[in-house]
Amino acid sequence: MSERIAEFDLVARIRARAGARGDVVLGIGDDAALLLPPAGMQLAAAMDTLNAGVHFPLETAPADIGWKALAVNLSDLAAMGALPAWCTLSLSLPDADAMFVDGFLDGFLALAQQHEVMLVGGDTTRGPLSVCVTAHGFVEPGTALRRDGARVGDDIWASGTLGDAAAALAQWKSGVDHDAFLRRRLDRPTPRVALGRALRGIATSCIDVSDGLLADLGHVCEASCVGAQVDVDALPASEALRISFDAERCRLLRATGGDDYELCFTAPADARDGVPHAAAAAGVRLSRIGRVIEGPGVTARMAGGGAWSASAPGWRHFA
Amino acid sequence: MSERIAEFDLVARIRARAGARGDVVLGIGDDAALLLPPAGMQLAAAMDTLNAGVHFPLETAPADIGWKALAVNLSDLAAMGALPAWCTLSLSLPDADAMFVDGFLDGFLALAQQHEVMLVGGDTTRGPLSVCVTAHGFVEPGTALRRDGARVGDDIWASGTLGDAAAALAQWKSGVDHDAFLRRRLDRPTPRVALGRALRGIATSCIDVSDGLLADLGHVCEASCVGAQVDVDALPASEALRISFDAERCRLLRATGGDDYELCFTAPADARDGVPHAAAAAGVRLSRIGRVIEGPGVTARMAGGGAWSASAPGWRHFA
Repeated sequence: MSERIAEFDLVARIRARAGARGDVVLGIGDDAALLLPPAGMQLAAAMDTLNAGVHFPLETAPADIGWKALAVNLSDLAAMGALPAWCTLSLSLPDADAMFVDGFLDGFLALAQQHEVMLVGGDTTRGPLSVCVTAHGFVEPGTALRRDGARVGDDIWASGTLGDAAAALAQWKSGVDHDAFLRRRLDRPTPRVALGRALRGIATSCIDVSDGLLADLGHVCEASCVGAQVDVDALPASEALRISFDAERCRLLRATGGDDYELCFTAPADARDGVPHAAAAAGVRLSRIGRVIEGPGVTARMAGGGAWSASAPGWRHFA
Repeated sequence: MSERIAEFDLVARIRARAGARGDVVLGIGDDAALLLPPAGMQLAAAMDTLNAGVHFPLETAPADIGWKALAVNLSDLAAMGALPAWCTLSLSLPDADAMFVDGFLDGFLALAQQHEVMLVGGDTTRGPLSVCVTAHGFVEPGTALRRDGARVGDDIWASGTLGDAAAALAQWKSGVDHDAFLRRRLDRPTPRVALGRALRGIATSCIDVSDGLLADLGHVCEASCVGAQVDVDALPASEALRISFDAERCRLLRATGGDDYELCFTAPADARDGVPHAAAAAGVRLSRIGRVIEGPGVTARMAGGGAWSASAPGWRHFA
């Protein structure tokens, strides 16, 4: 039973749950939010949109859509080493469905509260289901993790496990019984904010894995004017992935599956002591998966002696 | 002849034209932009989405969509008295149409350059045509024009002329020959940035007219816990509007037509000397259109003695 409400009521519904922060002078309800950036910090701003049927299956639960819409943006801040603070939300809905909005907010705000992020503005409009979020965070000058700092000889690292989200999507599409762990990895990705913070001063470059490991590493290589050699068998796999797919499929999912929102970063070999400390501080597993070499391009090597040259295709929105 | 290109090429296309500012450490091309807010200023952040077929007719020219998507956001900053600086853009497109994107950027960036606003990030995704923009600006602490400052006895003012955009839309829908002036008011609204800046220290409250004068003034009254009495015959009308519509229709369009992006503000009666100075400084005409009274509600009075009580409906996205 969906309830139809006017836009202004919808805004009131969102505003009532938006949270609070001392550095927000004015939140939802005016023409713009008024914010107080901390002195001496750089402001990091990320913006990502999720469209129904493109970025998530149409039948995704509203709470999962809400969680993910914020998660992909916090993941961008994590990949910069920034500490999230504020977000704005533009929600396009076919109609003013209060039950959808309440469910959406359950997921969105659960993640916002975990990171003490306040929803400070945005709009609600009529249109095909689409969610656009802008996330703002702070980072100390000179410490941001950029894509353009990888150097030849650096190690390449990945957090968590890879391929889980793509595996869940494959199961969903094929109508196979879902593995609950994989499905949760797809629906409720964990932005690696604490890891990004811990990697300041250690990582030379960083990106979050949204398009697939090889594709995203390709972006780092291009920005840094280097190449990369990846050991596909070293790409971290979850138990659930290994159980659900054969070895070849499992490899492909880890190398090219998108939507995991893990961090892939580079660090000098002499940081091999520091990296585990960062992992421990952030409570996340890290795997050394390859090495930065002369460019261009990413080469993926397998134990059996096979190799993929250049990047296998990842998640390309217009491919 | 549309050309299909991959998303990454699309981003490169946008990045090449994004402009430059000294306070942008890192623009398009990483996980987030890195920005340097000026010390001692508040950050104003506005976010608005335009969906095809809802906020603009499907056959709107790409350059006009681009202009308007930024204009409605700069208008929000203007209504706060903020000086625009940076924006991010999320563009959803049914396919990667380079000609559309080039046209869109022509309009978007023409307005951005007028206001020295730099496009610093965002994303391009596949989906029904939709444009989401976040605009950031600066305002001196304590000087922002908010909705909640109107006081009983204040004058109510409006900039420019009202009803033009709704008139153009009515002509478009009815297939009548367009009036070029009205059509330009719909397609290329002028964000009143200089006026917003000039009104700091003068206006007690401010809003931009996006939903229609009476509806938007209603938002101010609600936020300020006051009422308003509007003289409908004092609502400023363009020559083109008067020529194209009869007196009754003309009244209704000025009172309830949305999408003009003029500023409606309140100021104490003793600011009647200061207000014209602000108008002159900003190069825009101002009209005194009513008075703040005890609330609640907005009453619209006409010369003939008629009156509309409460707000006539404006542009309500879910109405």
